[in-house]
Amino acid sequence: MNAAPSFQRIALIGFGLIGGSIARAARVQGLAKEIVTTARSEKTRARVMELGIVDRVVKTNAEAVKDADLVILCIPVGACGPVAQEIGPHLKPGAIISDVGSVKGAVVRDMAPHLPASVHFVPAHPVAGTEHSGPDSGFPELFINRWCILTPPEGTDPAAVDRLRAFWTAIGAKVEVMTPDHHDLVLAITSHLPHLIAYTIVGTADELGEVTSSEVMKFSAGGFRDFTRIAASDPTMWRDVFLNNKDAVLEMLGTFSEDLSKLTRAMRRGDGEALFDHFTRTRAIRRGIVEIGQDSAAPDFGRLQTSAVKKS
Amino acid sequence: MNAAPSFQRIALIGFGLIGGSIARAARVQGLAKEIVTTARSEKTRARVMELGIVDRVVKTNAEAVKDADLVILCIPVGACGPVAQEIGPHLKPGAIISDVGSVKGAVVRDMAPHLPASVHFVPAHPVAGTEHSGPDSGFPELFINRWCILTPPEGTDPAAVDRLRAFWTAIGAKVEVMTPDHHDLVLAITSHLPHLIAYTIVGTADELGEVTSSEVMKFSAGGFRDFTRIAASDPTMWRDVFLNNKDAVLEMLGTFSEDLSKLTRAMRRGDGEALFDHFTRTRAIRRGIVEIGQDSAAPDFGRLQTSAVKKS
Repeated sequence: MNAAPSFQRIALIGFGLIGGSIARAARVQGLAKEIVTTARSEKTRARVMELGIVDRVVKTNAEAVKDADLVILCIPVGACGPVAQEIGPHLKPGAIISDVGSVKGAVVRDMAPHLPASVHFVPAHPVAGTEHSGPDSGFPELFINRWCILTPPEGTDPAAVDRLRAFWTAIGAKVEVMTPDHHDLVLAITSHLPHLIAYTIVGTADELGEVTSSEVMKFSAGGFRDFTRIAASDPTMWRDVFLNNKDAVLEMLGTFSEDLSKLTRAMRRGDGEALFDHFTRTRAIRRGIVEIGQDSAAPDFGRLQTSAVKKS
Repeated sequence: MNAAPSFQRIALIGFGLIGGSIARAARVQGLAKEIVTTARSEKTRARVMELGIVDRVVKTNAEAVKDADLVILCIPVGACGPVAQEIGPHLKPGAIISDVGSVKGAVVRDMAPHLPASVHFVPAHPVAGTEHSGPDSGFPELFINRWCILTPPEGTDPAAVDRLRAFWTAIGAKVEVMTPDHHDLVLAITSHLPHLIAYTIVGTADELGEVTSSEVMKFSAGGFRDFTRIAASDPTMWRDVFLNNKDAVLEMLGTFSEDLSKLTRAMRRGDGEALFDHFTRTRAIRRGIVEIGQDSAAPDFGRLQTSAVKKS
């Protein structure tokens, strides 16, 4: 028996970075007899057709989910409720319905009421991404060695959870199961707050009077450019994240603000020891992340210029 | 005539990431007949000796600068004043004295009084680095395509400035000249504030009650890990930066805090349009940085797993 699950038909609603990467990875791994997809815009559908990664590109969500035994919504969190309402009546009994949203409490709240009792609802969040979006941005290796968090509502059939777990494992991810609320707290600190702060500081830099934007860009290698990568993430996706995980983000922001005040006070008072101690502690956390394989220790993320210095 | 400057003897005080990279690059480019270095710790001096990159490793700063026609202090900003006092009486008339500090106003204030009128003082700041430090962390390509900012005090001999400019150009950097005060403002936003914020948020994540450190590390690929790289930078260097560029950092922090309040308010009120507009604007800034070659457009900095997904 093959450990990897094979689905007769997988339907992907949305074909951006995540949907497109799932399609490519599932194709490489031979996890589906047929992959059907759709996207809201005519332009995206046409491009997906050209790319030739999926078997069929259809016009409506209802058509896409017809007879599919795995349906994954790969769309912004705010669109999940309306799409669930749209596809609910067309789902095949016994199908697994999932998503890839970065917020889980709101997705469960918005989708669950529209899904028939005959399907298995297993929300998911692959913690992986890049700053790029659109149908061309996906690649089959995106999920390798990254975590995918499943948040099945109480009472979900464990066999359906296992099947989805096997699917994500087959495309390279490590899977963990937790409650939607805990997920939303964990992601608030590991993802949502960092994005909010990066979006803020990049905006701040753009508004300064005495320092020009062109200077900000030229001298960005001192740290700023790393924030701009995060602040280049998809605007629609992130608008929906902040609107739908407000409470957890505000809670983390409260702690962050207190900590920022503490460091600012140390700076103001010239307390070098407090600064040094804090900076030594944060350096150790970095080591932990590199050790567990969630980042590369290559200096500067391998941005290193490999071309030799020209001999003059 | 060769465009690249050749020095009889270059003295590097300090052999960490920057000093070690200058030595390696100057060696590759043949810019010095002799490179002499020293470091505060016996251990570092022994390691530099083993590495075999420089011609001589000496014990004292006074000995290192003897007969050198280019002296570069590659040490934390806070150490520049005392070292200038120490080496002042031993400098060769006509020598160029420089540094690599991330703050320029304080360096000029602390060093200038100790330097004899017979030398040329040309402070410098190469805007390049990685999160690693120590004698083994340097590499000759570090400065390629990065900016090096020179901040010569008024009245400095233009020929000395040109000579140092040619040196940095020869090891790959692009050079710009500005006043120390303007430098400190530009770097406050492009480097110092991003570091302060990264140091803060990584500390915050380490202190949470409901979310464990191990969860923070596991799910760090959602954005947090980029902050940890910045927050892994050398603690001594950064303590000195914040103690010595307090005013400019506090000014930028003020604007940042106002902007953070604005975004927080939009989130609280559910103003999706304001969030979307802001996020669209910041995405454009990222494009600017990639276009001028100060970062790579490779998704996720090429962290991509290149190994193929295993067939199961």
